Amino acid sequence: MQGHTIKPSSKQLSSMVVVAAAIMLVLLAGVAHGGRRRLVSSSEDEPCKKMTVYYHDILYTGNNTANATSAAVTKPAAALSTSHWANGTFFGLLVVFDDLVTEEQALSSEPVARAQGFYFYDKKEEYNAWLAFSLVFNSTAYTGTLNLMGADLMYEKTRDISVVGGTGDFFMSRGIATLSLNAAEGTVYFRLKMDIKLYECYV
Amino acid sequence: MQGHTIKPSSKQLSSMVVVAAAIMLVLLAGVAHGGRRRLVSSSEDEPCKKMTVYYHDILYTGNNTANATSAAVTKPAAALSTSHWANGTFFGLLVVFDDLVTEEQALSSEPVARAQGFYFYDKKEEYNAWLAFSLVFNSTAYTGTLNLMGADLMYEKTRDISVVGGTGDFFMSRGIATLSLNAAEGTVYFRLKMDIKLYECYV
Amino acid sequence: MQGHTIKPSSKQLSSMVVVAAAIMLVLLAGVAHGGRRRLVSSSEDEPCKKMTVYYHDILYTGNNTANATSAAVTKPAAALSTSHWANGTFFGLLVVFDDLVTEEQALSSEPVARAQGFYFYDKKEEYNAWLAFSLVFNSTAYTGTLNLMGADLMYEKTRDISVVGGTGDFFMSRGIATLSLNAAEGTVYFRLKMDIKLYECYV
Repeated sequence: MQGHTIKPSSKQLSSMVVVAAAIMLVLLAGVAHGGRRRLVSSSEDEPCKKMTVYYHDILYTGNNTANATSAAVTKPAAALSTSHWANGTFFGLLVVFDDLVTEEQALSSEPVARAQGFYFYDKKEEYNAWLAFSLVFNSTAYTGTLNLMGADLMYEKTRDISVVGGTGDFFMSRGIATLSLNAAEGTVYFRLKMDIKLYECYV
Repeated sequence: MQGHTIKPSSKQLSSMVVVAAAIMLVLLAGVAHGGRRRLVSSSEDEPCKKMTVYYHDILYTGNNTANATSAAVTKPAAALSTSHWANGTFFGLLVVFDDLVTEEQALSSEPVARAQGFYFYDKKEEYNAWLAFSLVFNSTAYTGTLNLMGADLMYEKTRDISVVGGTGDFFMSRGIATLSLNAAEGTVYFRLKMDIKLYECYV
Repeated sequence: MQGHTIKPSSKQLSSMVVVAAAIMLVLLAGVAHGGRRRLVSSSEDEPCKKMTVYYHDILYTGNNTANATSAAVTKPAAALSTSHWANGTFFGLLVVFDDLVTEEQALSSEPVARAQGFYFYDKKEEYNAWLAFSLVFNSTAYTGTLNLMGADLMYEKTRDISVVGGTGDFFMSRGIATLSLNAAEGTVYFRLKMDIKLYECYV
């Protein structure tokens, strides 16, 4: 596939911009406009904002109505799901969630957001998922939302998904969220650690 | 969570760019390239494009085949949906739609786009939804698509979702769409007002 | 709708940036930071990266468990699906997939990625779909993911969807993927050609 990749030629470079160091411009823009200013990181080592939160998924089992925060709304495609493992890999199972998000690990700690969206399992050979959701903040620290989507490659210790937009305090944000499994209790509960780094911000 | 937020240090600022006032650059770029030029708003008060449209959802009820533009394809997770209200909050109900979008409020007014995508209800305690869709324009004014996703926080009078991309006349666009309920007739019909502001455009 | 479009006034231009020719800045940024640098194309004629890949969808039919890479997880909304064609347009059918992606056309050629996500049919009058997925690369050429979403307007010979983010080798990418039907065998197999052009890259 490398043959399909076009290396930027000098002609192309002449029509591209590099996000450049510009303290002076920051100050000028601050003078020119009362509102928030756009910041774009030039390097992946220097996000304009970062945070770590914990996502708690409590799947509805049939008898945990009060505690459950998510529920399957489709069934696995049986033959595909069990084609490699008798117990199944849930291929095709789609789950809708309104999950608690906390700053500390403990489920009982202070909530900072809800994660609202869906995931589904999508692999025959092993557990693997795909998800899209919003982090809905409504705390003293933040109001607004972050919108995320991507492949939850469960066989990887950590996996990255995209922050594709934001609203409110996260107006027009973009970035990366790194997910890792932090705890699990059978098929009822799991906790993901989410390290979120934004590379486009308005501040 | 504030403790997790890194305030930009002067070192960081040195590697960030602020989208700066640059009339001269606009003109230069216009000379240098025949095609469309990239515009990025530096302030949330000054979108590079904005429009207001109305989204009409007519849910299939069993006997409105000719008029219906959307249909439920999953059932609510019964116990969760009715855990707080006997009538249910539709938790888990997923709806696929090909909805009419008009410039004026009236359903019978001139169509400007179709909204194609899905929404689902995702809360036990009240009505709340999440949606992702494309606005597919095919009019004298515009051709192309805008792609949107986000939390439809129905308990808020207005709520923002993200415009995460665009094609055709909306090539590479990003922005915010502010949704508000504009009319409703039982569970069969609702109309959303969508105020769309783009902050990244190619013009 | 044109009346709703605000043409950039000179006041607005003063707060927008045009991504400008800047070879000198490219070099400077390379000196200033060891990591990858952000590149943004100013023109749609000059992507910072492009590639062509083929997407192979083999739908589960009930007796192709070994080969199938996708499966329907909802049923069509019967009355809507058959309202215009007795054979139906699959309105409401949602398919989860873990599809093979190759560099060459042949299904048997070297895989370069998996496409993991979902599509659903969403029109009464004809075949039409909407999809969101990740291209998961794990080859000698690339590791990382591209995240895509948009309307798959099947009645158009080619149609564009949005690349809304990326990770790994595609860190923070954005762009456009142009889809076209490349082959089909009944309702079991179809192959899409995907011409992907990125306009925001880190290199």
